[in-house]
Amino acid sequence: MNSNFIHTYMSVDCVVFGFDYDNRLNILLVKRRLNDDSEEKQSKLPGSLIFSNEDVDESAQRVLFELTGIKKMVLKQFRCFADPNRASNPDDIKWMSKEYKPDIDRIITVAYLSLCKIDHKINSLKYVTGDWCPIDKIPALPFDHNKIINESLIEIRKWIESDFSIVFELLPKKFTIRQLYQLYSALSEKRIDKKNFHKKISSFNYIVPLEEIESNVAHRAARYYKFDSKIFKKSNNKLLK
Amino acid sequence: MNSNFIHTYMSVDCVVFGFDYDNRLNILLVKRRLNDDSEEKQSKLPGSLIFSNEDVDESAQRVLFELTGIKKMVLKQFRCFADPNRASNPDDIKWMSKEYKPDIDRIITVAYLSLCKIDHKINSLKYVTGDWCPIDKIPALPFDHNKIINESLIEIRKWIESDFSIVFELLPKKFTIRQLYQLYSALSEKRIDKKNFHKKISSFNYIVPLEEIESNVAHRAARYYKFDSKIFKKSNNKLLK
Repeated sequence: MNSNFIHTYMSVDCVVFGFDYDNRLNILLVKRRLNDDSEEKQSKLPGSLIFSNEDVDESAQRVLFELTGIKKMVLKQFRCFADPNRASNPDDIKWMSKEYKPDIDRIITVAYLSLCKIDHKINSLKYVTGDWCPIDKIPALPFDHNKIINESLIEIRKWIESDFSIVFELLPKKFTIRQLYQLYSALSEKRIDKKNFHKKISSFNYIVPLEEIESNVAHRAARYYKFDSKIFKKSNNKLLK
Repeated sequence: MNSNFIHTYMSVDCVVFGFDYDNRLNILLVKRRLNDDSEEKQSKLPGSLIFSNEDVDESAQRVLFELTGIKKMVLKQFRCFADPNRASNPDDIKWMSKEYKPDIDRIITVAYLSLCKIDHKINSLKYVTGDWCPIDKIPALPFDHNKIINESLIEIRKWIESDFSIVFELLPKKFTIRQLYQLYSALSEKRIDKKNFHKKISSFNYIVPLEEIESNVAHRAARYYKFDSKIFKKSNNKLLK
């Protein structure tokens, strides 16, 4: 018998991606207050300890609902973060003691990816402020939240490689090819050749041109497109079939 | 403050895949003994509670090393299983009390995929028996281990769709196209057209024919091939580049 088995608290943390009108990839952050007697706030990923009657997926759904007021959001569990020292910063210990309970020595967290159309109205039940933060402007976050975000970027790229329809969860219902290109570029590690991209995209029959074009734009008005998930499901070709 | 936050034990469980000489997909199972006074044994997935100084990935590496004597095995964390009732079967509670400690009310587990060439010599440090079990002959297992295996099958399929080189982790160093076809068929959800498969495969320059052919076989001796990971890395074409 080994008495060194951990007995631990568990949490979930959610990395919610959104794509904004300036064509940047954003992550939804919330604020935590470090002291009751100070107004100083620090950004963090939305998350929660899990309850004794919850499975982790339920817990993540609850966090997202409390955060956005949206009941069914795309949700993908992507990794368990369990570094023994991930919750050992004195500020984090102090905050956990205030937010949850004293003497929490270790928390293991399960991280989730979620996607939210940025024009979706967010009605948080729990937080005063939920702020979209561009991924190149993420500040220093508590715990290992910066590491979780870095890994979530790798994960969302893999996700899109394996299921291209994911990008349309982030775009408005009608979008221009320029928006699609900019989102795909923001999600990719490398520079995407524009010409090649247009050629590929025009071969995808599930990206359907609409009659409508942009209005009130400085540049040449572009055509709007929509994503047809039914055609996508039929045409989605795997390596070997 | 909510006193219903769980305080839980954490474990890792490993689904180790192997591909046998009868061209079936197998999973490595170990035996647990339910009672000291009985010889009756039950199969289970190899796993362990995690120690207080361990990250989950380290814990999974330890389990695999204790299981196989192999130091660096391919390892992929794939999902956290946290159903509140997953460890509530009386037999499981009894076994945990003997194996670990009494009064364990809940265990959350992080499941891993691993791949092992079936001709790899296995020297277990911990188990008397580690048995390869064909995936269509998996018996009723304790906890939610059957569910973990079912989900691991979905996961390994996705993994191979996103990284075809994974199949070569399961094949011997030199293999026939028939073996590759049978492994790929065993891993796929649907019937693979043989002709189509051969055509595809022959277009992959990272599958390199050798001078050697099979010997001592009843059917027509087939040529051996090897996998060239360097060529694969170069030719690995994603959706858009």
